[in-house]
Amino acid sequence: MDRLKSKIRDIPDFPKPGIIFKDITPLIKDPATLRLTVHQLLQPFLCRDITAVAGMEARGFIFGSLVAWELGLPFVPLRKPGKLPYDVQTVSYDLEYGSATLEAHTDAFNSDDRVLLIDDLLATGGTAKASCELVEKLGATVAACAFVVELDFLQGRSLLSNYEVHSLVHF
Amino acid sequence: MDRLKSKIRDIPDFPKPGIIFKDITPLIKDPATLRLTVHQLLQPFLCRDITAVAGMEARGFIFGSLVAWELGLPFVPLRKPGKLPYDVQTVSYDLEYGSATLEAHTDAFNSDDRVLLIDDLLATGGTAKASCELVEKLGATVAACAFVVELDFLQGRSLLSNYEVHSLVHF
Repeated sequence: MDRLKSKIRDIPDFPKPGIIFKDITPLIKDPATLRLTVHQLLQPFLCRDITAVAGMEARGFIFGSLVAWELGLPFVPLRKPGKLPYDVQTVSYDLEYGSATLEAHTDAFNSDDRVLLIDDLLATGGTAKASCELVEKLGATVAACAFVVELDFLQGRSLLSNYEVHSLVHF
Repeated sequence: MDRLKSKIRDIPDFPKPGIIFKDITPLIKDPATLRLTVHQLLQPFLCRDITAVAGMEARGFIFGSLVAWELGLPFVPLRKPGKLPYDVQTVSYDLEYGSATLEAHTDAFNSDDRVLLIDDLLATGGTAKASCELVEKLGATVAACAFVVELDFLQGRSLLSNYEVHSLVHF
């Protein structure tokens, strides 16, 4: 995965001092590396009974829609509050400061859907855990979560101990 | 394009009374219709000298990244303020109430890039016009803008009279 890592740029002190942000814009600007990334993301699921792919706003829309496209599956956006126009189910979760909310349409999934959740980054796991809960609140099952980047030192994976978790590169 | 229209849902009074929101979540949940949509979006550009695709946050990330993927071109996200970690170029524009800002990384494009702008919806044209200006501020050229849906009665196309504009379905 050195080829992927070479296209992920460290930005010191963003969004605040002391944080090193992993910038994936060089990766999505390089078609060959993006192709490798998406194919590695979906590879564990090629022979699995996945029926839908969900992606978290906003960078998860890029990787999620590409994984759904390549698997020939429905794509469901999990959105920030107030963006989805139809009836929504909501889940709120704590952040370091304050809280956040994710929404999905109440008709986003069927009750027998087995959902693959896709995001670019697994950090503390708060957004991912809330996304899993949102899928379950809507009556579907989380088959697995897959991330491009995992920040091991934040131990987000421990928050997802009830779920199958895959990541392509680790920092 | 009746097949596309059949997957676009009218939501009355969203985001505010009197507005009929065009909801594209049924379209992206239907893999066959999404495939048709993306292939129709990129069809005019198959034999054109396009070198990069840009998509506006957030629904433009879905269609933009899929068009870039299918054309084998770089994808550049145009983002809301404060999201991009590297040095950014900024453009602000007026909305009905207040204003909005779009950002892109200063290294998002090369000076000889010919950029295809993708978004789900052409409404008043404010976001699209600002996106064109942002691409040009960064030294690249706007080759064309392509939208899934155009709301003809809002005359957004007149704001884009200096650009080539394509839309798949009209309301």
